[in-house]
Amino acid sequence: MARRAAATKPRARSRAPATARELATKQRDISVSEFFAKNRHLLGFDNPSKALLTTVKEGVDNSLDACEEAGVLPDIRVEITQLSETRFRVAIEDNGPGIVRAQVPKIFGSLLYGSKFHRLRQSRGQQGIGISAAGMYGLLTTGKPVKIITRTGKRKKAHHFELVIDTKKNEPKVKRDDEIDWDRDRGTRVEIELEGAYRGGQHSVDAYIRQISLANPHAQITYVPPKVEEHGAEHVFPRVTKEIPEETAEIKPHPYGVELGVLMQMFRDTKSRNLRSCLTSDFSRVSSRTAGQICERAGVAPNRRPSEIGREEAEKIHKAIQDTKIMAPPTDCIAPIGEDLILRALKAEVNAEFYAAVTRRATVYRGNPFLVEVGLAYGGALAADDTIIVYRYANRVPLQYQPGACAITKAASATDWKSYQLQHPRGALPVGPALLMVHIASVWVPFTSESKDAIAHYPEIIKEIRLGLQECGRRVATFIRKRKREADEARKRAYIEKYIPQVAVGLQQILDLSEKQRDKVVDNLTDVLERSRKM
Amino acid sequence: MARRAAATKPRARSRAPATARELATKQRDISVSEFFAKNRHLLGFDNPSKALLTTVKEGVDNSLDACEEAGVLPDIRVEITQLSETRFRVAIEDNGPGIVRAQVPKIFGSLLYGSKFHRLRQSRGQQGIGISAAGMYGLLTTGKPVKIITRTGKRKKAHHFELVIDTKKNEPKVKRDDEIDWDRDRGTRVEIELEGAYRGGQHSVDAYIRQISLANPHAQITYVPPKVEEHGAEHVFPRVTKEIPEETAEIKPHPYGVELGVLMQMFRDTKSRNLRSCLTSDFSRVSSRTAGQICERAGVAPNRRPSEIGREEAEKIHKAIQDTKIMAPPTDCIAPIGEDLILRALKAEVNAEFYAAVTRRATVYRGNPFLVEVGLAYGGALAADDTIIVYRYANRVPLQYQPGACAITKAASATDWKSYQLQHPRGALPVGPALLMVHIASVWVPFTSESKDAIAHYPEIIKEIRLGLQECGRRVATFIRKRKREADEARKRAYIEKYIPQVAVGLQQILDLSEKQRDKVVDNLTDVLERSRKM
Repeated sequence: MARRAAATKPRARSRAPATARELATKQRDISVSEFFAKNRHLLGFDNPSKALLTTVKEGVDNSLDACEEAGVLPDIRVEITQLSETRFRVAIEDNGPGIVRAQVPKIFGSLLYGSKFHRLRQSRGQQGIGISAAGMYGLLTTGKPVKIITRTGKRKKAHHFELVIDTKKNEPKVKRDDEIDWDRDRGTRVEIELEGAYRGGQHSVDAYIRQISLANPHAQITYVPPKVEEHGAEHVFPRVTKEIPEETAEIKPHPYGVELGVLMQMFRDTKSRNLRSCLTSDFSRVSSRTAGQICERAGVAPNRRPSEIGREEAEKIHKAIQDTKIMAPPTDCIAPIGEDLILRALKAEVNAEFYAAVTRRATVYRGNPFLVEVGLAYGGALAADDTIIVYRYANRVPLQYQPGACAITKAASATDWKSYQLQHPRGALPVGPALLMVHIASVWVPFTSESKDAIAHYPEIIKEIRLGLQECGRRVATFIRKRKREADEARKRAYIEKYIPQVAVGLQQILDLSEKQRDKVVDNLTDVLERSRKM
Repeated sequence: MARRAAATKPRARSRAPATARELATKQRDISVSEFFAKNRHLLGFDNPSKALLTTVKEGVDNSLDACEEAGVLPDIRVEITQLSETRFRVAIEDNGPGIVRAQVPKIFGSLLYGSKFHRLRQSRGQQGIGISAAGMYGLLTTGKPVKIITRTGKRKKAHHFELVIDTKKNEPKVKRDDEIDWDRDRGTRVEIELEGAYRGGQHSVDAYIRQISLANPHAQITYVPPKVEEHGAEHVFPRVTKEIPEETAEIKPHPYGVELGVLMQMFRDTKSRNLRSCLTSDFSRVSSRTAGQICERAGVAPNRRPSEIGREEAEKIHKAIQDTKIMAPPTDCIAPIGEDLILRALKAEVNAEFYAAVTRRATVYRGNPFLVEVGLAYGGALAADDTIIVYRYANRVPLQYQPGACAITKAASATDWKSYQLQHPRGALPVGPALLMVHIASVWVPFTSESKDAIAHYPEIIKEIRLGLQECGRRVATFIRKRKREADEARKRAYIEKYIPQVAVGLQQILDLSEKQRDKVVDNLTDVLERSRKM
């Protein structure tokens, strides 16, 4: 073996011990774009059909976030044009606030740039990777630049950009930058050309558009799928409400969730001039009294200058924090969809017999506030013999891949659905005519990967989902039992009704009644049956 | 709901349409270290026990890679010291080539820096993230710097560094840098302090050390686990061979695996002055004749200057490449462990009755050469009633997490083990007294995540694993059948032997034989039995 390999190896191997210097010459920086270009499956570009979906998703997420931050009712257009068998152009257009010219290249032409990473606030995007990664994938597979049109107001001109990412430097290269006329007063349009595949099924773009519309009832979404058979028709998903989701507050980190290294970094960066004010102003839920308790417990003076606090003191403070009782973080930073809107969205989505929705109270995992919502539709047009349909959402974004790895699936499979009148094979999802919609909203959603397909199994999160499912389960069980009881009664009644005339004839013969008396008996018996039914 | 949130929100929300400018002020760069510090579960630092394992793993991987590149028989020492209930110090020391002073800070104090990312060559590390991420995790949880001692030769002094990563800039900050005396002539020692947990079981550091030693029979590994009950004893895993794995060649990319965007980049970067020479010198397996065919098919002149080739021409060339028959990439860049060493390692690991090993020929997925090896031990000390044990390896590194997501598990479960005489519940791993060792070696292993826990499901890879398993399966089946047959025969023989004297007595009575003749009959019959047994 060794001999064969040696024979075909181009260079002689150096076994000299002085290799450290040689090795040193090969060391170099790897740009984050190079890293993700090579590892693009990590960002959701595993294969052509997932790449198409991810591109649409990143574009729509950004548009929705931008509209909400600016307080605009989103009006979003998604156009997919098939250019050849394997090549597509995706265009996403919104009526958001637009982007100021100087920011455009960085936002679309470099990875890890954005406004959402450094704050604790609920938004769809978290990382500052998504849309530029989609552009990078387009460039990689088609060589075409990303095209952006953006306008920040009526009195401003629209800017038109074409740019590519320089993967070696993770920097944008602007190919075109001019002003153009645009019929929108305000908004942004992004166009990306990429190698892709347009497929149906639960992983499809079509399914995504349906589901995103369901969880964003304030958004109007116009979808133009690629022409498959007939002329590509527009599908409009109208808004169900004109109420924009409440703008969510940005929160400060809760002391319990802060690690020693982060704490030390905060002491170095703080603008506060002493420890006490740093604790009260840079963290959530630390009152001056609490700060005093922490300092005392740590044996560090409250008037100590934070930048002078060394590792050992920081460690004492860190320990003191864990030992001090501190209020849970505020939860008003989470914006739920709300039970009312979930019901309305579900009713627009599917023609069922029964609907339920539960918005749980916000709670906390690892210092991060989060909240769970569950919607359920039952019966009607839903198929009775299949596994129930589960729509999973995180911060209003549907999760379409990796259901098996997701906390939502785990909680749904572990809930005892038999007691809620559904068939339930052990360890699997229940079977029945039901659609479940589970939404988790948080300032920081713990995804299992950057491709944001599944939620990690934090026990606190699974517990909240289970409680939401149980609440909906109890309500649907009441409905199903009531319907069963009614069906039972109707059957019994039909049965009795059928025999009332025979009973009357029997009584007529025994008691020697007239025809009229006999008819009266029929009326009376029917009346009794009627009344007993009503009780 | 909306009202409640509004009441507690600190700032009034701005609904003014001029928000684009406001939003712009919040945009900023995210350093790759900040990204991975927040998303550290992606790198294998999900929880304290996995963090401890990952730290050891990254250190040992680096040491083995360094020794092999320098042609040194690895002699590696792993010490874990428990400092408090949740705090550990991990030290990894090797006899490798050492690191030149100027490189130390970048290698240990910044993410995405290294020599392995930009080349196509088989090595344990791929990304330039591992060891600095471990240092960053240590800093984050304990505030302590990474400590490095390194020496590049007898006549040089050893350097001693203490450094931390500045996560905001992804840059090293050197805390200490001096020369010291060190008893090793050459090598590197890394010490990281971290919050961790020391556990047993299949995910443990102990299991890792056993498994890494099994797949690296040329390495001597000395392991000092944390003192748990008795005084922390040294475990030495001696080397089984003194042959260093053949140094693997670096290869050029194969044209079939290169995407349009990458191709365009290569045209921009090449040192070649014309297209033909760029194709022959920057790619593997492109002869001058093949290059000519590609140019002709693309309709681009072979003497065209690569840097002047535009997108449209590049696209034609890209298409022409797919349409041209090009030899598969060379596979001598892959260094297998080899059947002989796998057998020796398995024999050292477990006392079984039967061993088999198969090294498949190298083949290709997505333009990347790879190779599969399978080892199997059967019977003896292995438990008969349990699911078989499966050790998974990629480039000689054991994979201990996420077996369910791994191509190796998938292939092992899908193989028909019943025909190889093992019990096999449908869709699961087989049951029986067997240990399987599956190794995939490649210039680029397609992991499903940066934490390198599982191999992605490429059909080409699964097929090769299956073929390797089947080969071992056939051999063990032959052994099991033979053993069964022997057991059958032994039973029959014992049975017949038992009755030979009675038969002789019967014959004696019927034929009126003498005592001597009867004894002769016994001898003859025994002899016949003996001979038939031998045939």
